[in-house]
Amino acid sequence: MTQQSFLSVASKFKAVFLDSYGVLKNYNGLIEGVPDTINFLRKSGIAIRVLTNDASRSQQQQAEGFYKLGLTSIESHEIVTSGMMARQYLQHKILDGKIAYLGTENSAEYILQSGLEHIAIRDVQFDAIDDISAFVFLDDEGFDWNSDINKTVNLLRRKNIPVIVANSDKLYPVSRNDVSVATGGIAKLVENMLTKKFIHFGKPDSQMFMYAFDELNQFGNFSKNEILMVGDTLHTDILGGNKFGVKTTLVLTGNTRADNAETQIDSSGIIPDFICQSIVT
Amino acid sequence: MTQQSFLSVASKFKAVFLDSYGVLKNYNGLIEGVPDTINFLRKSGIAIRVLTNDASRSQQQQAEGFYKLGLTSIESHEIVTSGMMARQYLQHKILDGKIAYLGTENSAEYILQSGLEHIAIRDVQFDAIDDISAFVFLDDEGFDWNSDINKTVNLLRRKNIPVIVANSDKLYPVSRNDVSVATGGIAKLVENMLTKKFIHFGKPDSQMFMYAFDELNQFGNFSKNEILMVGDTLHTDILGGNKFGVKTTLVLTGNTRADNAETQIDSSGIIPDFICQSIVT
Amino acid sequence: MTQQSFLSVASKFKAVFLDSYGVLKNYNGLIEGVPDTINFLRKSGIAIRVLTNDASRSQQQQAEGFYKLGLTSIESHEIVTSGMMARQYLQHKILDGKIAYLGTENSAEYILQSGLEHIAIRDVQFDAIDDISAFVFLDDEGFDWNSDINKTVNLLRRKNIPVIVANSDKLYPVSRNDVSVATGGIAKLVENMLTKKFIHFGKPDSQMFMYAFDELNQFGNFSKNEILMVGDTLHTDILGGNKFGVKTTLVLTGNTRADNAETQIDSSGIIPDFICQSIVT
Amino acid sequence: MTQQSFLSVASKFKAVFLDSYGVLKNYNGLIEGVPDTINFLRKSGIAIRVLTNDASRSQQQQAEGFYKLGLTSIESHEIVTSGMMARQYLQHKILDGKIAYLGTENSAEYILQSGLEHIAIRDVQFDAIDDISAFVFLDDEGFDWNSDINKTVNLLRRKNIPVIVANSDKLYPVSRNDVSVATGGIAKLVENMLTKKFIHFGKPDSQMFMYAFDELNQFGNFSKNEILMVGDTLHTDILGGNKFGVKTTLVLTGNTRADNAETQIDSSGIIPDFICQSIVT
Repeated sequence: MTQQSFLSVASKFKAVFLDSYGVLKNYNGLIEGVPDTINFLRKSGIAIRVLTNDASRSQQQQAEGFYKLGLTSIESHEIVTSGMMARQYLQHKILDGKIAYLGTENSAEYILQSGLEHIAIRDVQFDAIDDISAFVFLDDEGFDWNSDINKTVNLLRRKNIPVIVANSDKLYPVSRNDVSVATGGIAKLVENMLTKKFIHFGKPDSQMFMYAFDELNQFGNFSKNEILMVGDTLHTDILGGNKFGVKTTLVLTGNTRADNAETQIDSSGIIPDFICQSIVT
Repeated sequence: MTQQSFLSVASKFKAVFLDSYGVLKNYNGLIEGVPDTINFLRKSGIAIRVLTNDASRSQQQQAEGFYKLGLTSIESHEIVTSGMMARQYLQHKILDGKIAYLGTENSAEYILQSGLEHIAIRDVQFDAIDDISAFVFLDDEGFDWNSDINKTVNLLRRKNIPVIVANSDKLYPVSRNDVSVATGGIAKLVENMLTKKFIHFGKPDSQMFMYAFDELNQFGNFSKNEILMVGDTLHTDILGGNKFGVKTTLVLTGNTRADNAETQIDSSGIIPDFICQSIVT
Repeated sequence: MTQQSFLSVASKFKAVFLDSYGVLKNYNGLIEGVPDTINFLRKSGIAIRVLTNDASRSQQQQAEGFYKLGLTSIESHEIVTSGMMARQYLQHKILDGKIAYLGTENSAEYILQSGLEHIAIRDVQFDAIDDISAFVFLDDEGFDWNSDINKTVNLLRRKNIPVIVANSDKLYPVSRNDVSVATGGIAKLVENMLTKKFIHFGKPDSQMFMYAFDELNQFGNFSKNEILMVGDTLHTDILGGNKFGVKTTLVLTGNTRADNAETQIDSSGIIPDFICQSIVT
Repeated sequence: MTQQSFLSVASKFKAVFLDSYGVLKNYNGLIEGVPDTINFLRKSGIAIRVLTNDASRSQQQQAEGFYKLGLTSIESHEIVTSGMMARQYLQHKILDGKIAYLGTENSAEYILQSGLEHIAIRDVQFDAIDDISAFVFLDDEGFDWNSDINKTVNLLRRKNIPVIVANSDKLYPVSRNDVSVATGGIAKLVENMLTKKFIHFGKPDSQMFMYAFDELNQFGNFSKNEILMVGDTLHTDILGGNKFGVKTTLVLTGNTRADNAETQIDSSGIIPDFICQSIVT
């Protein structure tokens, strides 16, 4: 598969869905040249949505983050996070009781704001769990891994309640070479201990694509073949985009390196429609 | 979890999504009393959609099938099949070349009607595969399992193309006690041989729920918490409904038996909002 | 399957292999009546071996532990641990370099005593990893879960070296109701992050059975059908014994409860030859 | 990892364990030069054992096969097959009843010769299954895939009996480019349908290594670090040899090609001690 210019690929579409980490930014901050690409898309009248597997910050916080980095035109409503999907789910499906969680106060604040009480796993008393009606894996910080992961396993052995994973990514990069186990990795550990399947939010699942598609169509008339999904990860961005039925572009500025992109595509069977070095050229 | 009357549960919703096999009918034909329930729902102004993992017959053929069984009010547009989702995908994503398939002429006819040529795996010549651009698992009949499954494995070892599974069910019931390996089971065998992941259509994946939800909203204004998904299988109907964010009812007239429903719910962690004996009472 | 008296079952064999936790002892100490059973077996001339998935203590430490609990006749050589198997592997296969590990000093002391240097993961410097030739998951204590598990992931991303799991149990019980994630669970998390398979020691794998069988045959002439494996866990003790080709007895004093033993046997397909309430009667 | 001369590597050992297909022979017959290597090993006093995942032919038939191809010195007792392990298991563990099977008469003949009656799945009557005490997957021929695989699924849904897979290989090569689904692949399909785990024989499991090691030690005194396992497949030969604790050599004349050996070793984490082009040089 030959590499193409992103700008010429994108020009054929009415909207682009962009992953955030590995596409717009990396561990160093904004990827060089990205603001120019965003400006080009804006001028060309191409709609932009950012689809990010993240449950630690709200839409507003994300938009402010982009603003500080120099991407001043990204508006809150253009951002779709896996955390929003988890929040929506909780609002529709969990109507009473208390929601226990693993994560930070901050993420609990915005995701669990459905009127129901929430409680950090460390504060749960095992002799008073009758009113706990759901459990949420929010993020990988804000708790003691040893004691709080074990406590989560034991709570979920005692009570069969819906368990929601607000970000299903297994790993996230923390520097050029290093990664850190993410929420989805911790949730997977607990799933393995219990041999149960939790409800995962985030790409490659369709919810974020669906949401972005519906929201976008409030601003015009977009069909799936007029939309391009852009991402750096085959198993989330490209698989998810392919399943949703939009065209997909793999960029090589994040998880997938130029020197083994072909090998990974061959061995996974996840095939992007286009490959571009970055979104910059 | 205590069993409830389906009619009183359903009365609280504006629309019900019904699985077909195990809910409306079984190996014997229509489940006794089902026409009365459908009439009750119609009279109560509750919208009905049938969501079925099936790729062997078109919407029209399905509607005619219900008509012959005595369910005369189910219209074509009220039926959503996994085969329709696969067809839609192929139309959006596979724009040229030839589509190879495993299945019957009949299913190929209606799913692969996208203008592209299609070819049964048995007719594929390995020295002329340059123009084959996708592969579809359609159904479990219409081919020789030994030679054609092996030929599929070898085609997909030679060519890395998108592979679509038009019905991801692993098994289907053929009598009171017996089952038969379904399309999804055969596709899983081939995935195991190649250690690749194909693109699966059908519950629990969200596409059919999405489609039914959007189609329904052309006839009125339905929000997710006004919709009830009804099914006999935890891993497809209930998991899918839960992930999509609608309320779910497990019925005990199909795959899940009354005597081990609780055990299966506990061990899988897939929790319906309601349990009813059948949709009849 | 009807329950039988353990003493009458055991009487038909020349040797019994006993799991430790859930068979001889539990979170409370020795299971009541166990010393009488051990005496009965000794008097009947039935050889005893204890096969335990444990890498935290040496044979001698294990034997002393039994002695203190009141099982005074268990000798060091009658105990086989998964840690011994890991040590043996390291001695045969890792002949130079340094062995990095996750676990306590104590377990590192006796397992890594092969003449090679060993180093805790927290002390590894990523700019000096050239001489690290293997990695061992020893136990679930002695390190910071957050920082040291992440550091392990990053070491193993940098260097493709043999990785050994000295105890493949995922969970261990800490009280009547509660469990704790064990070494095998942590190793599984890291395997998932890397999508690699490590080398696991401990039941159900055959190494401990093999070792016990060979060691036993230095004291007489025992064939496989003269040996009975006794355990409380289907997936380790019973599966392992079945695969090794000895007869197996499930006891109900540990992981498998009387009220769902049949369900677990049916759903797993792991079938013991006998079921006994405990080894006491 | 640099490639080495097989003859100089082998010279450091007292015994070599050789995989058959991909090491000694391929779809064309004997690999050129192999008889010279066997002669070299014989003259050097290095013991030879052939470890092959095969359940379709007995030791004698295998030895005759080698003889006809020109490997005249391989004796029956030097051959270890996964089928022999399955037979041994059945003899120890299944003491009465009838053994049902999927496979050819020929393989049934030599594997099921334990005095018990055996019956092909196609001849099983579902109203007379009380005396069926075990099921064996023997090979991939001798039955109708569609009807007999489905019948196997339904038998095993009706009766929870030990299920043995006499050869766990998923695929075998039938020509330079093509493969065929093997016994282990068919068994895996049925395991997926039932969500049960069967008892698998063949590399990478330890039974064949154990058997070869014990048999070898009747002819002398061999320790594990004096033995070299040679194979063309990382997941069976090399993983199995590594777990058993002997040194391992990957050869590039079969499943693993020279151009992606390093990639496969990196991505699987299965690391041979040596890599040689073939056993010939």
